Amino acid sequence: VEEKNNEELLLHLEDVHHADIAEILTELSLDEAVYVVKLMDSQKTAEALMELEENVRERILDTLTPKEIADELEEMDTDDAADIISELSLERQQNVIAEMADEEHADNIVELLRYDEDSAGGLMAKELVKVNENWSVTGCMTEMRQQAENVTRVHSIYVVDDKNKLKGRLSLKDLLTAPSRANISDIYIPQVDYVNVHTDGEEVARIMQKYDLEAIPVVDEMGRLVGRVTIDDIVDFIKEEAEKDYQMAAGISEGVEADDSVWRLTRARLPWLVLGLFGGLGSVYVMQGFEEALAKFPVLFFFTPLIAAMAGNVGVQSSAIIVQGLANNNLRGSLFKRLLKELSLSLINGVVLGLLIILFGLIVGQPQLVSLSIALSLLSVIILAALIGTFVPIILDKRGIDPAIATGPFITTSNDILGIFLFFYLSKVILGF
Amino acid sequence: VEEKNNEELLLHLEDVHHADIAEILTELSLDEAVYVVKLMDSQKTAEALMELEENVRERILDTLTPKEIADELEEMDTDDAADIISELSLERQQNVIAEMADEEHADNIVELLRYDEDSAGGLMAKELVKVNENWSVTGCMTEMRQQAENVTRVHSIYVVDDKNKLKGRLSLKDLLTAPSRANISDIYIPQVDYVNVHTDGEEVARIMQKYDLEAIPVVDEMGRLVGRVTIDDIVDFIKEEAEKDYQMAAGISEGVEADDSVWRLTRARLPWLVLGLFGGLGSVYVMQGFEEALAKFPVLFFFTPLIAAMAGNVGVQSSAIIVQGLANNNLRGSLFKRLLKELSLSLINGVVLGLLIILFGLIVGQPQLVSLSIALSLLSVIILAALIGTFVPIILDKRGIDPAIATGPFITTSNDILGIFLFFYLSKVILGF
Repeated sequence: VEEKNNEELLLHLEDVHHADIAEILTELSLDEAVYVVKLMDSQKTAEALMELEENVRERILDTLTPKEIADELEEMDTDDAADIISELSLERQQNVIAEMADEEHADNIVELLRYDEDSAGGLMAKELVKVNENWSVTGCMTEMRQQAENVTRVHSIYVVDDKNKLKGRLSLKDLLTAPSRANISDIYIPQVDYVNVHTDGEEVARIMQKYDLEAIPVVDEMGRLVGRVTIDDIVDFIKEEAEKDYQMAAGISEGVEADDSVWRLTRARLPWLVLGLFGGLGSVYVMQGFEEALAKFPVLFFFTPLIAAMAGNVGVQSSAIIVQGLANNNLRGSLFKRLLKELSLSLINGVVLGLLIILFGLIVGQPQLVSLSIALSLLSVIILAALIGTFVPIILDKRGIDPAIATGPFITTSNDILGIFLFFYLSKVILGF
Repeated sequence: VEEKNNEELLLHLEDVHHADIAEILTELSLDEAVYVVKLMDSQKTAEALMELEENVRERILDTLTPKEIADELEEMDTDDAADIISELSLERQQNVIAEMADEEHADNIVELLRYDEDSAGGLMAKELVKVNENWSVTGCMTEMRQQAENVTRVHSIYVVDDKNKLKGRLSLKDLLTAPSRANISDIYIPQVDYVNVHTDGEEVARIMQKYDLEAIPVVDEMGRLVGRVTIDDIVDFIKEEAEKDYQMAAGISEGVEADDSVWRLTRARLPWLVLGLFGGLGSVYVMQGFEEALAKFPVLFFFTPLIAAMAGNVGVQSSAIIVQGLANNNLRGSLFKRLLKELSLSLINGVVLGLLIILFGLIVGQPQLVSLSIALSLLSVIILAALIGTFVPIILDKRGIDPAIATGPFITTSNDILGIFLFFYLSKVILGF
C-alpha cells in the first residue's frame, strides 16, 4: 500500500472513518504509521490518535516534535487533549503546551490536568453551550450559534448567572417557540442534575445511568459551571471500572491489557502469586501440625486440595456477588440478614456436596466414619468460606477501602489456610488421632 | 408517610424524579407500593416501573390487572414495554396486549418480542424520526414535528426511500439552512452506520463505542429501517456483559444479583461447586497413585495445596486477560507469539517463586534436594497452567463458544489436577521414590 505515492494514499484515506484509520495505523510499522500521520491533515489524525491503544499512541507521539503534537491537540476536544498530554513526560508536556497557538484552548487543557483522572473534573470537557439568564432570546440565538461551532454535539444548553453559577437548563424547543423579546430567565428550567469537579467518576456514572442522562454539567466549589461530562466518556469509564474489578478478582492489578509488555504484566501478576505462595506455605505449616494423622489417615492429605479448592471457590462466589452489589449500590437490608442468607445458601450447597462425598466413599469402599468426617468438615468449611466472602468486602467497603481487593487471590488464600486448618481440626475431633 | 391522604402524597411525589420514585417503591411494602402505583398517573409510574429491580417489579405487576399493565405500557417506549412484557407468563402477555388501546404501539411491541433479547432487534426501540428522500424540505419539517412527539430524544434523522430502505441520515443543521423547495435527496448524507436486527448485542456495543455513536439505526434482512438502538440501552448492556463475564470467572452463572432468592443463587452457584468437587476427587485419585511417597517424603503432601493454588491462580490470571482481550476485540498477533509471551512471563514468575521456595527450605532446614525438586515442579506447573489458561479460551473462541466459561472454576479445576499430577510425577523422577 505504501510506496510513497502520497496523493493516492490521501485520496484513499479521505473517506475512511477515523476509528478505522486508527486500526490501520496499529497494523503498520512505526515508521509507516508516523509517515501516514504526518501526511494527513491534523483534524483527521487527531481523531485517529484518540482511538489508538495507549502503547501504540505513545510510540507514535515519541517520534513527533512538540510543535507537531501541539498541532494535533489544537484539533481535539479539551478532555481528549488533556488525556493525551497526561501520557507525556512533565518536560514534554510543558514544551507542547508552549507550542500551542490557541491560548484559551491551552489554558483549558492545563486546567483539566489539575484534576484527578477518575473525578468528574478529570472526565469532563470544557466545550459546552451556555447562556446567561439575563440575555434575550434573540441575543441568545446569535451567541449560541457561535458557541456551537466548537462543540461536536450539543446535548443541553446550560443557563448561568452573571457570576457563571449554574442556574438550570434550556430546552431547544422552548427557545425556538418563545417570543423573541422574552428573557432567558422567563423560559429556562430551573431543575438540573449536576456534579462537582471532585465527584468520583463511579458516582458520576451512577447518576448518569440512573437518570438516563447523555451529558451532565460539572460545577466547581463555588457552584460555577466549569465543564460537562458526556455519556461516551462514561461508557469507557464504566467498562474500564468493570474490567478492573474483574482483573482484581483474577489476581491482576493496574488494569493491564493482553498486549502490554512482559515486564508490566509481571508487575501486575507476580505480587498476587507471591501472596498465594505465602498462603501455601501457611498451609504447609498447618498440615505439619497434624503430621500424626499421616500414619492412620493418609487419605485426609489426599483430600486437602479438594477442601482448599472448595473453600476458595465458595469464597470467590460470595465475595463476587457482594462486590458487584456494592459497586451497583443495590445491596439492601442489614448485614445480619445477608449473613443469614449466605448461611442458608451454603448449608444447601454444603449438604449436597457432603452427600456426594459420602456417595464417593461408598463407591471406593472408604471407611464410613472417614467419609462422614470429611463430609462434615467440608460442610463447615463451606459455611466459613461463605461467611468470610460476604463479611470481608462489606467491612472493607464500610471502612472506605475498595472491596474489590478482597476478591480473588486474597479471599482464596485466606480461605485455603482457614479451610485446611478447620478440616484437620474437625477430622481430629471426629476421628481422634 | 402513608396514611391514605392521597392528595398530599401526590403533591409530594409530583416533583420527584422517576428514578427516585423507583427507589421509594423498593423501600415500601408490596401493598404500599401497589397503592402508590395505582394512585399516581401512569406516565410517571411507567417510568418508575422501568427503573425498578426485576424482582420488585415482578411482584408489583403480579397484583395489577392486565388492563392496568396495558395502561402502563402505553406510556412506555416500545423497547421498554417489550422488556417488561417479556417478563410475564405467555398467557398474561396475550391478555395484556389484548387490552392495549393503541394498536400500532401493541403491534410494535409484539414485533420486538420476536427478536432475541441480546440481538440488535431485541435492544432496539421502534421510536425514531425518519423522512423520505423524495420529500421536500417543507413537507419534511411538518412530518418531523409530528414524529418527534412520540420520540423522547431525537438523536438522528434517518432518510429512507419509498420501500422504507435506509439510505442515509440528515443533519438538522443542513435541514434548517436548506432552501425550502429543495428535496431531501439533495441534502442528505448518504453515509450512515447501521446494524442488522440479528447483529449480536456485543457487536452493536462495539460499533457504537468505536464510532462514538449515540444511536444506530437497525435494518431488517431487506435493508428496511425497522428501529434504532440508543446509547443508554447499550450502557446497560455493556455493564451487564462485563458483570456476566466477571460472575462466570467467579463460578456463578445466569447473571444473578445479591438480592435474588436463595434458590436462584443456589442454581447459579452449586453446579460450579459440583464441578470443583469432581476435580477435587480427581486429585484424590491422582495422589493415591503416588501413595508410596507418603513414607519417605510426606512433605510433598503438605505442599499440594500450594501447588494447586498456584496452578489455579496462574490459570485464572492468564485466562482473564485473554477473555477480556477477546471481548474487546484487541488481541493481535499469532497464537504462537502469544504463547511465547505467556511462556516468558511464567518463566519469570516461576523462577522468582521457586527461589522463594528454596529460601523457605533453607530457613526451616528442609533437605535441599527436596526444596529444589519442589521449586522445579512449581516452575513447570506455572508454565503449564499459563499455557492452558491462554490456549483454552482462544480455542473455544475460535470454535464459536463463549471463552468466558473457560475462566474461574473450570480452569482452576483442570489446572489443579494437572498441576498436582505434574508435581508428583516430577518429584518422583527427581527424588526417586
